[in-house]
This record gives sequence, structure tokens and C-alpha cells, in this order.
Amino acid sequence: MSEFLERVRTSVAAQPFTKLLGAFVESIDDDAIVLALPMRDELKQQYGFAHGGVLSYLADNALTIAGAVSMGGPVLTSEFKINYVRPAMGTKLIARAKVIYAGKRQAVCRCDVYAQNAESEKLVATAQGTIVQVEGV
Amino acid sequence: MSEFLERVRTSVAAQPFTKLLGAFVESIDDDAIVLALPMRDELKQQYGFAHGGVLSYLADNALTIAGAVSMGGPVLTSEFKINYVRPAMGTKLIARAKVIYAGKRQAVCRCDVYAQNAESEKLVATAQGTIVQVEGV
Amino acid sequence: MSEFLERVRTSVAAQPFTKLLGAFVESIDDDAIVLALPMRDELKQQYGFAHGGVLSYLADNALTIAGAVSMGGPVLTSEFKINYVRPAMGTKLIARAKVIYAGKRQAVCRCDVYAQNAESEKLVATAQGTIVQVEGV
Amino acid sequence: MSEFLERVRTSVAAQPFTKLLGAFVESIDDDAIVLALPMRDELKQQYGFAHGGVLSYLADNALTIAGAVSMGGPVLTSEFKINYVRPAMGTKLIARAKVIYAGKRQAVCRCDVYAQNAESEKLVATAQGTIVQVEGV
Repeated sequence: MSEFLERVRTSVAAQPFTKLLGAFVESIDDDAIVLALPMRDELKQQYGFAHGGVLSYLADNALTIAGAVSMGGPVLTSEFKINYVRPAMGTKLIARAKVIYAGKRQAVCRCDVYAQNAESEKLVATAQGTIVQVEGV
Repeated sequence: MSEFLERVRTSVAAQPFTKLLGAFVESIDDDAIVLALPMRDELKQQYGFAHGGVLSYLADNALTIAGAVSMGGPVLTSEFKINYVRPAMGTKLIARAKVIYAGKRQAVCRCDVYAQNAESEKLVATAQGTIVQVEGV
Repeated sequence: MSEFLERVRTSVAAQPFTKLLGAFVESIDDDAIVLALPMRDELKQQYGFAHGGVLSYLADNALTIAGAVSMGGPVLTSEFKINYVRPAMGTKLIARAKVIYAGKRQAVCRCDVYAQNAESEKLVATAQGTIVQVEGV
Repeated sequence: MSEFLERVRTSVAAQPFTKLLGAFVESIDDDAIVLALPMRDELKQQYGFAHGGVLSYLADNALTIAGAVSMGGPVLTSEFKINYVRPAMGTKLIARAKVIYAGKRQAVCRCDVYAQNAESEKLVATAQGTIVQVEGV
């Protein structure tokens, strides 16, 4: 892993909210990034599935990381949209994001979120958003 | 507060993820709902602002609650979109959601998220989404 | 109407696609803009309602105009999201857009689209999007 | 092409607004659909590029067709989101849509819109949306 990619991973790990949830960058390269989150009861809503807010956190963060890798500097998520397609059950949540278009000042990225257990993996949400470069950070 | 509104509030309070974050329904009536979240360090990203995932959790949950109140039964968020407009600083985050259109099976809702401190309140994000009735829950 | 607002109105009227559809800026001020489109058969889909693409054109254009008025220069729509809430019937379509947040380089705007007839007006779609300043145009 | 796919193509061709613009289903199968639109001056905005409303029409319609093929009956677009990534220049616009998730009552679809000329093809917009079954049509 390049020094830059290692710096991105470290920067994500340093987010207090990411620590509170327990997510981590599982893999990262120039084409795609994977953010993982082991499931636990604290991440659920009242019906026993992962809370939608957990899935939107994963999508938001994975989109941002993909944009950061693409544009090579400090970025932030300007906006995104997420569709929830299935209740999220399983032992681990996985967000896979990639860049669809990268310009000088912004990137458009997509992210699919999956719920995994020992036997299978199912798509639970899909997102699309805009990542912009931060000036002066 | 009617029995139904009280049940909605209790149901939100019972979400493990909502407990982990510390959010609560501050007010609720037929026109608008307010979800509040006192800020603390654990909810931040690496630059010291509230993490985007915290704002998206608030928007997602507030949209869902507004839809539940409107349609009067168990619902879930089908999809939503969020625009982040300012870094979220302050002592408390406030999500205000209302219904724009309610049909039999789905509602379209909007939510504005604000960051408050002792002196002021600023819009930090705005969201729009679709809430659908759950069958057989 | 100020010279600038008049220039915005003229610029919209000069869009060939806007001419093809027959839309025009009905009113415009610093707070809100109204784009109108008389209905005719050519604007319909196969069930006799206004085509979704007509409503998305109105939302896109109204959002852009609101952003242009807010930021005072050439802009373009970076992205938007639209929810269709009712079949659009009537003699005239009306898109009302306003700015929710305006920064130096981008504005977040909302737009409600209505279908009117002699007696009533109904919300048929609602949209939210990002307008950005164009450099060097 | 199956009888059902032929019926979808005929249904799209019968939309008055699709006729006004000149779009047509170029190919359609169970995995992906392609909607094409030859460029002409009437489809442009004031700077000489395809109007954003033309791209949103293509995305909306292609998403709907992909959903109709997936669910096998009359459908409508509930909502979608579009990101514009480049000015659309060229002799032909192409929208390619596919289904990401299909349930009983709704499908989540994606669409990429390209501008083509004799030598090349460039992505100009990307969209994601929800298609729902129509009851009683």
C-alpha cells in the first residue's frame, strides 16, 4: 500500500465516530475501497436489523474515502442518496465504493452495502454521491 | 400527546443504535417531529465536526418518524437523499422533519438538520426521502 | 425587475429545449422563482399524464434558475433528486423553486412542481439539488 | 425479442413526449436496456450542450423501462437522483439502465447516460432510482 493510501486508512481509523461504531477500512486501492463493520446489538433498530443510520454512515464514509483516494487530498461528502433494498441481517456489514467520474474539484462515486454471514452475502443498500475537495484544510 | 404518538416516541427510544448515539424525540405532533442529539466527542470526524454519518442517521430517523406519524403504523425508510451544507459544530444537533405528501402506502418527507449552541442555530444538512408502510410487521 | 433578473429570464427563454417545450419564467425575485408550462398532448406519456421527463425538466430548470439568482452568475445543475407523488393532470404545470442554502460556489435549492387546472392546484413532484457556479463561461 | 419485450418497446414508442424528443429503445433484454436519442439543436440549452432536462428525461425513462422489464408489468418511476458529470456534446445520447435489486413491488435501477460522436463516447450523467408497480392500470 502506498504512503498516501496508508494515510487515508489511518485518517479514517482516527474518526471518533468510526471508532464508536467499530468500522475499519478492509482494503483500499485505486479502483475500489472496502469499509467493514462487524455487527453487534448496539447497531440495530427496534426490529433486530442493522439501523438505517448505520448503513447510511457506511455509505457516506465509503463514498468519501473513494473520493479522497481518487482526488488525492482532503475531501468531504457534499451530498448522497441511498436506497435501502433489504433488511440488514448478518455478522458483518461491508461497503464497497468506487469512483464513477473524477474531475479536478469533485468526484461522483457509488457504493453498495452488503450484509454478510458465514454462508452468504446480500445487497442491503446502494448509494450515489458527490465528493468535493476541501480548500485550506 | 396521544397514545399513538407516545408509542412512536417509545419505539424510537427502544432502538439500540439510537441509545448508542444518545438521540431522543424532543417533540412530535401531526405536523412535524423533532429529533435531538446532544453533541459529544464520540460523534465527530477527524476535523472535530459532527460526522456526516451522524447527520445522515438523524435525517434517516427523523424522516422515518414523520412518515410513521403520517401513516399511522409500522414503516421503514425506502430511500433518502441528503445535502450537507455546513460543518456541524455546536452543543446539540436538531433534526426537524415533516411530511410533504402522504398516500396510502408511502409518504414523501423532508428534514432539515441544525447545529445549535447557546447563541445560535445553523442549518447543516437537508434531506428528502420516501417512507413506506411495512406489511405484516 | 432588476437588470440581472431580466437577464436570467431572457437567458432561460433563449434555451432551445425550453422553447420546444413551451416553458417560461412566470415570476422571479430574490426569494423564489416560478417556471410555468402550459400542458399539451405532446408532453404526455402513454397513460395521458405529463411525462416524468417533463416534470424533471421543470425541476432541473427551476432549481438552476433559483441558484443563478442566488449566486448572481452563470451556473449549472450539479445534481438533483426528484420524487413523483401524483400523476400530473391539468392545463398548466408550475415549478416553484427557492434557495435553502447559498455559499460562494454552490447553492442547495428545492423545487415543488404543481399541476393546475381552473379549480385547483396539486403537488405532483418535489425535488432537491445542488447548483454550482460555472467558471470561465 | 420476446412478445413482452416487444410490447415494452412499442409502449415507449407510443409516448407523445418520447416522439417529440425523438428517443427510441435501441436494445432491450433481461439484463439491460438502451434508450437512444439523436442530438439536434432543439434539445440544447443556451450554451450549446444538451439540456439537463433532456438527460433527466433519458435517465427517468430508461430507469422506468429497466424496472418494467424486471417486474413484468405496468410501472412508474417513484423517484430518482441524477448527477451531471460533463457537458453533453455529440451526435447521439445513449442511456443504459439496469436493475440493481428487484422485489415484488419495486425495483432499484441505475442508469448511465453517454454522449456519442463518431470517434468516442463519454459519460455525461449517472442516475439511480426506484420503480414501482402500478396497481389497476
